This record gives sequence, C-alpha cells and structure tokens, in this order.
Amino acid sequence: MHTFKSHFPAPSGSATGYDTLVVGAGFAGSVMAERLASQAGQRVLVVDKRPHIGGNAHDRHDESGLLIHPYGPHIFHTNSADVFAYLSQFTAWRPYQHRVLCSVDGQLLPMPINLDTVNRLYGLQLSAFDMEGFLAGVAEKVDQVRSSEDVVVSRVGRDLYEKFFRGYTRKQWGLDPSELDASVTARVPTRTSRDDRYFTDTYQAMPLHGYTRMFERMLAHPNIHVMLGTDYRDIVHVMPWKHMVYTGPIDAFFEHRHGQLPYRSLHFEHVTVQPPAGQAHVQPVGTVNHPNDHLYTRVTEFKHLTGQRHEASSLVYEYPRAHGDPYYPVPRAENTQLYRRYEADAEELSDVTFIGRLASYKYYNMDQVVAQALSTFKRLAQR
Amino acid sequence: MHTFKSHFPAPSGSATGYDTLVVGAGFAGSVMAERLASQAGQRVLVVDKRPHIGGNAHDRHDESGLLIHPYGPHIFHTNSADVFAYLSQFTAWRPYQHRVLCSVDGQLLPMPINLDTVNRLYGLQLSAFDMEGFLAGVAEKVDQVRSSEDVVVSRVGRDLYEKFFRGYTRKQWGLDPSELDASVTARVPTRTSRDDRYFTDTYQAMPLHGYTRMFERMLAHPNIHVMLGTDYRDIVHVMPWKHMVYTGPIDAFFEHRHGQLPYRSLHFEHVTVQPPAGQAHVQPVGTVNHPNDHLYTRVTEFKHLTGQRHEASSLVYEYPRAHGDPYYPVPRAENTQLYRRYEADAEELSDVTFIGRLASYKYYNMDQVVAQALSTFKRLAQR
Ligand SMILES: Cc1cc2nc3c(=O)[nH]c(=O)nc-3n(C[C@H](O)[C@H](O)[C@H](O)COP(=O)(O)OP(=O)(O)OC[C@H]3O[C@@H](n4cnc5c(N)ncnc54)[C@H](O)[C@@H]3O)c2cc1C
Ligand SMILES: Cc1cc2nc3c(=O)[nH]c(=O)nc-3n(C[C@H](O)[C@H](O)[C@H](O)COP(=O)(O)OP(=O)(O)OC[C@H]3O[C@@H](n4cnc5c(N)ncnc54)[C@H](O)[C@@H]3O)c2cc1C
Repeated sequence: MHTFKSHFPAPSGSATGYDTLVVGAGFAGSVMAERLASQAGQRVLVVDKRPHIGGNAHDRHDESGLLIHPYGPHIFHTNSADVFAYLSQFTAWRPYQHRVLCSVDGQLLPMPINLDTVNRLYGLQLSAFDMEGFLAGVAEKVDQVRSSEDVVVSRVGRDLYEKFFRGYTRKQWGLDPSELDASVTARVPTRTSRDDRYFTDTYQAMPLHGYTRMFERMLAHPNIHVMLGTDYRDIVHVMPWKHMVYTGPIDAFFEHRHGQLPYRSLHFEHVTVQPPAGQAHVQPVGTVNHPNDHLYTRVTEFKHLTGQRHEASSLVYEYPRAHGDPYYPVPRAENTQLYRRYEADAEELSDVTFIGRLASYKYYNMDQVVAQALSTFKRLAQR
Repeated sequence: MHTFKSHFPAPSGSATGYDTLVVGAGFAGSVMAERLASQAGQRVLVVDKRPHIGGNAHDRHDESGLLIHPYGPHIFHTNSADVFAYLSQFTAWRPYQHRVLCSVDGQLLPMPINLDTVNRLYGLQLSAFDMEGFLAGVAEKVDQVRSSEDVVVSRVGRDLYEKFFRGYTRKQWGLDPSELDASVTARVPTRTSRDDRYFTDTYQAMPLHGYTRMFERMLAHPNIHVMLGTDYRDIVHVMPWKHMVYTGPIDAFFEHRHGQLPYRSLHFEHVTVQPPAGQAHVQPVGTVNHPNDHLYTRVTEFKHLTGQRHEASSLVYEYPRAHGDPYYPVPRAENTQLYRRYEADAEELSDVTFIGRLASYKYYNMDQVVAQALSTFKRLAQR
C-alpha cells in the first residue's frame, strides 16, 4: 500500500499556484480573469460564493424554460466602442431598445418624461418648441442644486417631480429625494422630443444567448479555474496566489472596521403568467414603473428584453429592502466619506486590486464595470 | 504598504484543507460529496474539468429555452427504493415511462420486441400464447452462449436478430455482435405480452425541474466547494486534502501505463424543429431506433422525456464514434482483463477511492452509480 502523493509525487519545478486570485465572477472579475489569462498568460483562479457565474448579471431559464434575470432586469447599453468590441468576442447580439412606461394617474406614460408624457398627462397638444417653454414655466429656481429633489424640481417643477420621482425614489432608496445626492436622479433625463427610448447610447443590445453563455465563453480559457459556492475567506490562506483582484463589497473585505457601508437591497418576485389568447406579452413594454402605488417599484417582462418566443411569459416585481444582498451603494455624502476610509486602507495593500461596483462603492452600469476592468488590466500589465 | 497575508494572517488553528477531494461532479462524485458533507461533517472539494456539474447527466436549456440533455437522453429508472428515496431529498419527480420504436422495413415497431412487433412485422395475429411457440420455432440452438449474437439468435432467431439487433450493435459499438460480450444485448429483453414500455422498473420518473437543478441541491451544502473547468491534475498537488474519491476513467488516472482502455464515444447532433401545426411533437414516442439506415443509431425528442410545454421541439441524433469523450466501456473479455490490472493498481492506493462508471469500467446506469456511491460512503464512514 502507498499513498497518492508517494505514488504520484509533484513534478519538480512544475508551476503549482495561481498568479491571480479573482474574488467574484461578475463582470469585474470575469473580464479581469479573461484578460489576465489570455493576454498575460497568467494562471487565474476565480472564486464566487454564489453557485453560478455572472454575478448580478447572471441569467438562467426558469422552470417553464423562460430566460430570466434572477437579480433583476439587466439591459446592456454603452457609448464605448471599445467595451462593445471587447464583449463581442464572447457573444453575438440582439439589438434591443428598452422602453419604460410610468403608471401615473391611471395612465401609462413614457419615462423619461418627454413631449408625449406632458401632453397626455395634462391633456395638452404642445409641440417640441412649446415644451421648452412649458418646462421653463413650471421649473422652480433652486440656488444650489444639492439633492436629488433639487435636480428634478429645478428642471421639471414640483408636479412632475411629485408624480414621477418622489414616490419612486422614496420606495427605491427608503429616503426622500431631498436626502439623496444629486447624482441619483441626474441619471434620468427629460426630453422635449417624442423619443421614448429609455437609453440613448450608441450601442444597445442584449447578448443573443444570454449573459451566462457570454460569461461561460469568457471563462472558458484553459488557464482559468472557477470555484463556486465558495467564500474566498475559506480558501484564501489555503490556495497559493500572488495577486488578488477583489470585486466584493469593500467594507466586508476589511471586516467592517470603520462601520457598515449602506447598500440598498431588493427582493425579487418572479411570476410566470399566460398572456391572453393571441398575445405574446402582458405589458406593452419591457418595464412599467409604479411610483405611487404598490410596494414594488417596477415590473419587468423578460420576453421584451430577450426576444424569446414562448407561450408563457415571466415577469419580475422589484421590492426595495434595507437588508439583504448588497445591490446599490447608497449615494449620500456621508457614505462617500466612509468609503474613502476603506479606499485608503485598500491603497495600503500592495497585492490586492479593488474593482467593480461593490468594491468601488459606485453606482456603475455593466459597461462602466467592463471599462474599469479593461483599464485596470492595462495598468496592472504595465507593472 | 503591506501584503494581504501580513495584514490578514491565517487564523491559527483554523481548519484549512479539505477532508476529501472528489474528482468528477457526476452522480458518483456528487452523491459522495453530499454524504461526506452532510453525514460525516467533512469539508469537501469537488473538481470537474467540464464547466458544469452533473457529469453526463447534466441538462440545460438550449437557445430556444427547451430543456435538453447535451450528453444524450437520460431516463431515470430503478428498482431500488433506497436510491429513489435518497434522490427524492433533492428533487420532486415527474412520472415518465419511456417508449422506443424501431424503424424496420418501413414500419415503426415496438422495442423491446413484443407481441405487436412480431404481429406487425410479419402481418400475423398471434396471441401471447402463440408468441411463445413462435419464438421457440425461430430461435436457433446455440451450444454455449458467449457473444451478443448468441444471446439474440438463441432467443428470437436470425431474422429478428438481423432486423433489430445486428445493424444497431455494429453502429453502436463498431463491432459485430459476434465479437461482443453476451452482456450487451442481454440488457434488452423480449416480451410475449403487448407491454411496450422500454423499462419495467418499479420507479420510473424524471427529476421535475431537470437533473442539473437536482445536482445543484445536492452540492448546495456549505461544506462543499465546487471547482469547475479544472482538471484535478492541475490542483492535486496544490490543494490540501486527506482522501480522494476519483470518478474519471481509471486508465487515465494511471497515465495509461498498461495501455488505453477502449471506451466507445458518441457525437450528438442537436436540432430544434417546429412541429406541424396543432402538434406538440414530431415523433410518436421519446426515442426512435434506426438499426439499418443512416449513420445515427437513434433519435430522441426531449419533450417526451421532460414534459415541457413549448411551441418548438428539440431532438438529438446519436452518431457513434471510436474517439472522443469516453461514454461506454466496451464490454469484451480482453478489456475486462486490462481493467483488472488497473483495478489492482487502484487497490494499492490507501488514500484514493475509485467509483462511478468510468472508474469501475462498467456499463452502469445512473441508479447503479448512486447505489455504488451510497454503499461506498457507508464503507468509508465505518473506517
Ligand atoms: C437590480 C439591478 C438592475 C441592474 N440593471 C442594470 C442594467 O440594466 N444595465 C446595466 O448596465 N447595469 C445594471 N445593473 C448594474 C450591474 O448589475 C452591475 O454594473 C454589474 O453587475 C456589476 O458587476 P460586478 O462584477 O462589479 O459586481 P457583481 O455582479 O455584484 O459581482 C460581484 C461578485 O462577487 C461575489 N462575492 C462577493 N463577496 C464575496 C466573497 N466574500 N467571496 C466570494 N465571492 C464574493 C458575489 O457573489 C458576486 O457574484 C443593475 C444592477 C441591479 C442591482
Ligand atoms: C448516451 C448515454 C445515455 C445514457 N442514458 C442513460 C439512461 O437513460 N438511464 C441511466 O440510468 N443511465 C444512462 N446513462 C448512464 C449514465 O450517464 C451514467 O450512469 C452516469 O452518468 C455515470 O455517472 P458517473 O458520475 O459515474 O460518471 P460521469 O457522469 O461521466 O461523471 C464523471 C465526471 O468526471 C469528470 N472527470 C473525468 N476526468 C477528470 C479529470 N481528470 N479532472 C476533473 N474531472 C474529471 C468528467 O468531466 C465527468 O463530469 C447513459 C450514458 C450515456 C453515455
């Protein structure tokens, strides 16, 4: 009798450990792993505590075979030709322009607010030219734009603010817009045209076979190993690695030593329904916002996003929560202060790189995370 | 500046390594991992070189959302109440009785051969009682039943042998039935009744939400870590482990030192089709065998197996191959001899346990692999 290791000794001089340990298999981690393996010839171990790849952008088929996004609807859009070209190596695309309607006063009105929104809400027949004047007339003068409320009332006045923004923001963030950074609602424009697309980016498309298939191809490189259902803390002292890329929440990394960074969470309720005979969908557009009624903020019907043909249809209702998985950094000045303390700690670590939405504590879209990872890779590769 | 490890030293006395390294995330590996983690409190690392769990039983949704089996149709059937009860912890079931028709002389006839097969093939109107006599009349006397050919001709005679078995076996194994162990065709019974079920086991059912969901639940235990896209040879000298459970091909483990064990392979061609208007399926039953025409042996329509409702339908054509992924151990005396030499080597290793279809070089069904894993676990736990 003998043991495995006496029988198969480690080949001497053989490369054993990993060059980089990547924590998180979302966009940030997967892009880094792919670049490090394919461009720098590194051996990479990707570890995620969830049982799947893709992070919050993970998609999967539900029990009736409908492709859904378990962590809420993810629509890809970017102005960056580089980001789009990079991802196109791993997926074909299905062109998709997202549209959102807002349920207000018994009507479903275009969001962002545009000419039709105003005309239909108030029973007017303004032209694009009149709309400028209308908005100028209702806008409130705000000396210094500080909060989310300031942004909106200074642009569209109090009535539109109250009907479209206030309730939604209060539900979404558990805070009044007056308490939130200007940045939150600055993301949502107002249009004098009739353009009812939610995004106006140059590239708007969904991965043809879904996000997860795209991540599978990014991580398929033979130098990449993927460990799932595993918290990195359980293996970080076991695995041999030289450098770490960390994409989880930055405060958790430092064991919350300066206190918890607030993240807003969501509860997702997924329902599968049978559309009325002869209809493929139950909603006219991908997402309907509910600023003033119900406990959920919005309802998204995935078939609009995925283009899937299927007799049934699957929808997700989003219920904001104070506790749970960290989804959104809460954009308030005091939180940014707290984040700065963690950032300073992070800069003291020579062998750990922090990237991604949670590690940067920034409300990044997918394309911004990809761009951040690509530029971080370039920086690391030059060292 | 400091490093991760100077900043976060390994907690002294903390459990670091794995009790068991399981190679392969199919039935053999997943059952072992689940038992070791949940019943023996072990820390288990499961590693598979494929990018997914489930081994050959893995299922996934194709691009149109149809649930398919990428490695060929897998129908669960067992006579073991223990195996069924064990798996029922991880899945609900959909009762399913598999049926197979054989395309012979322009007809689709029940397989295994039964009363209707014979009546329709020869235009007869035999009763079950007549059928006994019919078979006795056509059966050939064989002194010693050695090969697969002997099994069949001694039971149903040369004509049925040539129409239903010879061509199929030659395609499937690349060998004439006269060159194959009796065991191969002994698996396929002949019936004097009209029973047209392919299996007669007590329990016949499919995991309600598919095999992969069942494996996800087996491997969800917090003490189980799963590493995918990783050959165990790349990590076996890196990871700390005490015992190994190996479920891959046994000859590969020993670097083919006694020569290659022959495995038969398959090429799977998956096609998605639109059934004729008003029809859900394109085949009358789950599987149609093609013993005498085409290069493929059989065609399976997944919706029969899965019960999925979907406007399209997905089929798989199986083309046997000499080379490729190892699917079937080739049942010939000389191969069994060769296997015995590897088995002897395996018995010399005190810290490695060999189980599963490839490590045992046996044509095991899923339930047999589960039974083998459960009893191996009991044996290991008693040590
Ligand atoms: C509801 C919702 C809708 C969104 N919609 C859009 C949209 O339409 N368009 C758009 O561009 N962006 C959208 N986003 C943003 C998008 O999800 C993010 O930009 C992107 O997913 C961030 O990628 P990431 O890799 O930084 O983080 P994540 O995807 O969160 O990945 C981080 C990973 O790290 C893992 N991890 C954390 N801690 C540990 C640990 N201790 N050990 C091991 N693993 C760990 C996590 O399990 C996670 O998988 C949306 C976000 C949310 C929440
Ligand atoms: C076409 C086909 C149809 C079948 N139909 C049925 C059926 O209808 N009913 C039934 O009961 N049974 C069926 N079977 C049998 C069934 O597939 C097996 O009984 C079962 O899947 C075996 O499980 P396992 O864990 O032993 O092996 P596998 O499922 O083959 O798992 C072994 C795993 O080990 C991994 N591995 C191998 N080498 C390494 C390495 N070096 N490093 C890391 N990982 C490695 C492999 O990637 C694989 O995932 C069928 C088999 C085939 C091929």
